[in-house]
Amino acid sequence: MAVLAIDVQGGDHGPPHLLPSVIDYFSQRPQHQGHIFGHDFQCRDLVRSLPSNLTFHGTDQLLPESVSPAQLVRHRYRSSLENAYQCLVSGQAAALVSAEHTGLLIALMHRHAVTHPAIERPVLVSWVPTVKRPLVMLDLGASFSATAEQFLGFAAIGQAIVSASMTTPPRLALLNLGVEANKGPQALRLAATQLATWPGIEYCGFVEANEVFNGDLDLVITDGFTGNAVIKAAEGTLDLTLNAIRQELSADWLGRTLGLFLGRRLKPRLSSLDPRLHNGALLAGSELAVIKSHGHADGKAFQAALNKGVEAAEGQWCPRILQHLDKVL
Amino acid sequence: MAVLAIDVQGGDHGPPHLLPSVIDYFSQRPQHQGHIFGHDFQCRDLVRSLPSNLTFHGTDQLLPESVSPAQLVRHRYRSSLENAYQCLVSGQAAALVSAEHTGLLIALMHRHAVTHPAIERPVLVSWVPTVKRPLVMLDLGASFSATAEQFLGFAAIGQAIVSASMTTPPRLALLNLGVEANKGPQALRLAATQLATWPGIEYCGFVEANEVFNGDLDLVITDGFTGNAVIKAAEGTLDLTLNAIRQELSADWLGRTLGLFLGRRLKPRLSSLDPRLHNGALLAGSELAVIKSHGHADGKAFQAALNKGVEAAEGQWCPRILQHLDKVL
Repeated sequence: MAVLAIDVQGGDHGPPHLLPSVIDYFSQRPQHQGHIFGHDFQCRDLVRSLPSNLTFHGTDQLLPESVSPAQLVRHRYRSSLENAYQCLVSGQAAALVSAEHTGLLIALMHRHAVTHPAIERPVLVSWVPTVKRPLVMLDLGASFSATAEQFLGFAAIGQAIVSASMTTPPRLALLNLGVEANKGPQALRLAATQLATWPGIEYCGFVEANEVFNGDLDLVITDGFTGNAVIKAAEGTLDLTLNAIRQELSADWLGRTLGLFLGRRLKPRLSSLDPRLHNGALLAGSELAVIKSHGHADGKAFQAALNKGVEAAEGQWCPRILQHLDKVL
Repeated sequence: MAVLAIDVQGGDHGPPHLLPSVIDYFSQRPQHQGHIFGHDFQCRDLVRSLPSNLTFHGTDQLLPESVSPAQLVRHRYRSSLENAYQCLVSGQAAALVSAEHTGLLIALMHRHAVTHPAIERPVLVSWVPTVKRPLVMLDLGASFSATAEQFLGFAAIGQAIVSASMTTPPRLALLNLGVEANKGPQALRLAATQLATWPGIEYCGFVEANEVFNGDLDLVITDGFTGNAVIKAAEGTLDLTLNAIRQELSADWLGRTLGLFLGRRLKPRLSSLDPRLHNGALLAGSELAVIKSHGHADGKAFQAALNKGVEAAEGQWCPRILQHLDKVL
């Protein structure tokens, strides 16, 4: 049983898409509870008949369109996101789910909690599709570069999450521009020498970004700038490939006929490869479990983020992470 | 008419694969000339009957298996690569093509030529497939990070190459982890303010890695670490997607029948999306035109690198680049 705080104002689609998916999710899972945070006027028609395990908490304030993280920290907007954070901080919810910008989520996390000193700022932990099962990769966009100690902090965070659901030591690799031990920047090489003797992991050395997807790893460590580039490049390539197939199959009648048969068969398999559908990244590093949904997530993708919130709450990810950071760093 | 110096000892396949493809390439292009550099014993059977536009220059020395760039600079190995560089430096060839490691190519470039001070070390310029025509991206692996001035140097190099074959100003973007002007590290933001007013380009701002592939850009600027990660992630995703299609189509008789029809149709189109097949990257920044082939390039891919060598020679890429760097930086 998990209790979630859910901000439905973030993202491209807002309450009209997100609220029905939240209601649907909790209707099917009466064992969980949700506190929904949204704008009174925008939500009022949608929250008239909520299942008994959902509560709506309205506000009349919206975040200004172009609010910056710095402004958010200085001004105490009574936004739905702020209210959801307070629900989380007070312990009434065990995890928060929002499709708001990473920068804003981080700004409020800084205000409401202390980030573990080993990593300095919160990191974004994501699940990335591979040939086999999804792996965990971090940082995915909250840092521009990383020191050796931060790389080790990322590794400890990833290890704490992945180990919770594995019986063997997770296979961990550092993303680099070559696999040889003398390749890459010094921070990575320093981290590598430490990880080689870390207890509880199977250290697999340096990998290049193509090896992320072959399913032989459980955990890939990188800085946020590179991690973001890898995920976005994967999304772009998938779109490019699918468009090429689509174009080829719409060129003539034979193609269209083949496409008819193929579309139905290939779609589920190919969509499982789309990083966008493994929605829900953990903003890790403090005692607050915050799940960031993609901004463009539709109702179905938002439910994947709700699932991550439940997993984070039930798996006690954040206490596990902090304990593990204390132990190894 | 172009004269190339070709080292056939580098890469995974060596002379048995590379030499026949070089001979085939020059047999079909009698207007060009080639100086082949290789190991006497390994090449002797393959160079017995060369076309008149090819000359073989043998050596009895091989580079040690695990030679490092630093060792290469200290010891003057009479390797085929060293001989090919000397041919280029002396002006007997206008471009050099090799499948040797980037580090070794850079080490010898440092010994034989001066890198333009604006970029400090040579950069790797690559051609990346998109939905439309390939774009030019740099740096692709020779640097770990970059200063604002280096980003501008990369932009100038790319501009010099791309402009040679375009009538409109090239559309240039900086790779970042968000498109907003306040996103990303300071070096990128500083470079962006300069590029916004650069003459001769259409500056398109920041892009994320997925936008690299949609065909709306001519030139993407990034540091070598990120560039390498983007290309490798694209390769990995393409493999992942093609494997998924292959598995789906071999699952039963209907799949296999569809696959039979489809394979022949889709293969040429999908393979055009593979970054590995756009083989041949320019190691830019000095007066020496050096084309790096992928280490795992087969004969056909190596011919793509030879083509790049001819283009570099005929298009006077390196003098153009140095002039342009002098002008803008």
